[in-house]
Amino acid sequence: MKNAIVAQSGGPTAVINASAIGVISSILESKCYDKIYGGINGIQGILQKKIVDLSHLDNKQLERIKYTPSSFLGSCRYKLKDHNEQDEEYLQLFKILDELEVQTLFYIGGNDSMDTVSKLSDYVQLKGLDKQIIGIPKTIDNDLCHTDHTPGYGSTVKYIVTTILETYLDFNAYDNKGIFILETMGRDTGWLAASGVIAKINGKAIVDFIYLPEIEFSQKKFLEEIAEKYIEKKIVYIVVSEGIKDKQGRYFFGSTSTEHDAFSHSQLGGVSKYLKKLIVEKGITTRVKTFELNIAQRCSMHCVSHRDIEESYLLGKEAVIYSNDGYTGFMVGIKRKQTEHYEIETFRVEASTVANNIKYFPAEWINTSKNNIKKDAIEYISPLIATSQELLINNGLPNYFCFEEK
Amino acid sequence: MKNAIVAQSGGPTAVINASAIGVISSILESKCYDKIYGGINGIQGILQKKIVDLSHLDNKQLERIKYTPSSFLGSCRYKLKDHNEQDEEYLQLFKILDELEVQTLFYIGGNDSMDTVSKLSDYVQLKGLDKQIIGIPKTIDNDLCHTDHTPGYGSTVKYIVTTILETYLDFNAYDNKGIFILETMGRDTGWLAASGVIAKINGKAIVDFIYLPEIEFSQKKFLEEIAEKYIEKKIVYIVVSEGIKDKQGRYFFGSTSTEHDAFSHSQLGGVSKYLKKLIVEKGITTRVKTFELNIAQRCSMHCVSHRDIEESYLLGKEAVIYSNDGYTGFMVGIKRKQTEHYEIETFRVEASTVANNIKYFPAEWINTSKNNIKKDAIEYISPLIATSQELLINNGLPNYFCFEEK
Repeated sequence: MKNAIVAQSGGPTAVINASAIGVISSILESKCYDKIYGGINGIQGILQKKIVDLSHLDNKQLERIKYTPSSFLGSCRYKLKDHNEQDEEYLQLFKILDELEVQTLFYIGGNDSMDTVSKLSDYVQLKGLDKQIIGIPKTIDNDLCHTDHTPGYGSTVKYIVTTILETYLDFNAYDNKGIFILETMGRDTGWLAASGVIAKINGKAIVDFIYLPEIEFSQKKFLEEIAEKYIEKKIVYIVVSEGIKDKQGRYFFGSTSTEHDAFSHSQLGGVSKYLKKLIVEKGITTRVKTFELNIAQRCSMHCVSHRDIEESYLLGKEAVIYSNDGYTGFMVGIKRKQTEHYEIETFRVEASTVANNIKYFPAEWINTSKNNIKKDAIEYISPLIATSQELLINNGLPNYFCFEEK
Repeated sequence: MKNAIVAQSGGPTAVINASAIGVISSILESKCYDKIYGGINGIQGILQKKIVDLSHLDNKQLERIKYTPSSFLGSCRYKLKDHNEQDEEYLQLFKILDELEVQTLFYIGGNDSMDTVSKLSDYVQLKGLDKQIIGIPKTIDNDLCHTDHTPGYGSTVKYIVTTILETYLDFNAYDNKGIFILETMGRDTGWLAASGVIAKINGKAIVDFIYLPEIEFSQKKFLEEIAEKYIEKKIVYIVVSEGIKDKQGRYFFGSTSTEHDAFSHSQLGGVSKYLKKLIVEKGITTRVKTFELNIAQRCSMHCVSHRDIEESYLLGKEAVIYSNDGYTGFMVGIKRKQTEHYEIETFRVEASTVANNIKYFPAEWINTSKNNIKKDAIEYISPLIATSQELLINNGLPNYFCFEEK
């Protein structure tokens, strides 16, 4: 018997299941592994033997899972210890995989998950184990190195920009307008907030200011530019990333929060309310509306990008092909071809070079006033959302799947 | 010349433009009026002579506006004074309408707007003016009397329930689950929050508790039932209306807010954070996530119900027919037929009986523990969202219209 296992880790996205289904479908079709298992709640659950056999999923189930948001196998934020310091977990994990005759672990996640892929694969090679660990990228944040973009980013952009268009039209309805602040996720990077640059109505950009974590945030400068724009237009639309920081690198809101995940990342959110307070206290206007997109921005399958879901699915399939070629310790990535129309190809890259690294929003795409995004970014972002996806609908609602065995 | 004018008032919805386009298309097709004007920012703007000629809109523009959320003519929250106390505004308004040779004003809005329709029509009849005032309903709150439901409700329900499904799947992904609180609009009534009862995955209802403004909210009872359910399930999904009140009828959050609109209604929002504080302080768990749907719930055309948009359009058309029959002071409404499959017909009702009245969520549809909704409500709500609508899409984004003349 030669089996495989797939697991999901980190924050859910609308398309992380599509990658899992890419792996599972590919294995069920090609029969390159005898069985395909699912690890529940990522590496943390596998260590607790929370494992299910997925070999009997039928095509109808696979299809439903592909179009269901969030991680159908559950997720975790679990950091493996360095095996030089403590190899208990490693011994435990490979014992479990041995019992199941698992040859390959497919691990879908962001840079923290690639840390797990890298550590496990190092251990495999050090100990000469006959195992393979393959990473598949996912994160709405688009902050993984090497890959042109990450699965999940396009769908979240589509949701954010659609919401910008709709809330702008709503906010613009009253004669007495004001300042609207939309808060997106993005702890370290501004890829999500920056996507506001593509929001246009009647061909005109509608976002006046975009603030990214990559740019030091000055309250003084902020209040000056907002006041000026408000006098000029009477309606100001701001998109801000939750992770903006001051000169000392301190978050504006998260710094007061005591919540951290296993990777010591702060749990943020709330910066838009902080900015509202600044604006009102400065006396610019009291009509300031804030909107935190919250977790809806990472699970809104009803607004998914067809291209995003198909690319995510493809990466799952490609990961199986790389595993057949004997690779370990790699992540599959997306390369954008230099063609007139958008085309991609996949490639592999060492997971260690992705792990714990961050791809920042390019400085050359930020305007000189450092408060908005240049048009150059539109060409990069637009193709990622350009197509829509019909879902399986039942009585007007998406017919999502929930794994009962979980 | 015999002309007409259409205007929009109150909080925007995804389908209020469909009603306006129903009026405009009907007039342009039937030529029953020579010109159709648009009043910008409702009655407030008409009083300031902010009026545009809409007679030259072409079919392509009409189609785009129909599928654009929010009020394309702008909105207002403006309360007319009693004409017995002060008739200046009335004299001014009818002078402006006379100058434009306007015979009929079509006013689209909620119960406050029907107050305007009623007052103006009373004045018309008192003074023997040759004018007609016709109301067309709209409100996501579904709290207008006489009509089976209000245009806008179905689309907001579709957005809320889709978001419940997606955020539930997201929140359920981690092994360490907790309590999720979704906050909907609904200052006086719980129609929106109650719609959570139709959210099902694998045939199972996923909302554990629904709290409505119609039911006195007891913090003690709330904490007891939440604690018990959390111990039982480890994941609790709550939907709460922003307008829940204590024994004395005080809002839990809005009461501290000093913001009121022209009709002395409190501007609410924030009750979910208040409930989170209660749960955490009680020591039930610290893992409590709150999500305020904010204005997205009233303008999410990307999640619109086809039935809702077509009914809204129909009411606009019917209003024109009633105006041809010489009626004034009426609102058009929706009557659900007693047929096996969902079917409706329209009727007219005196605007004065709708104005400043509230249709509460039926007590018989609330469970005995007064913390959830009975299945009986599903039959009422489900048909309103049962069909989907394709939008005009451009590069993966809705191609919305913004009126430049505004």
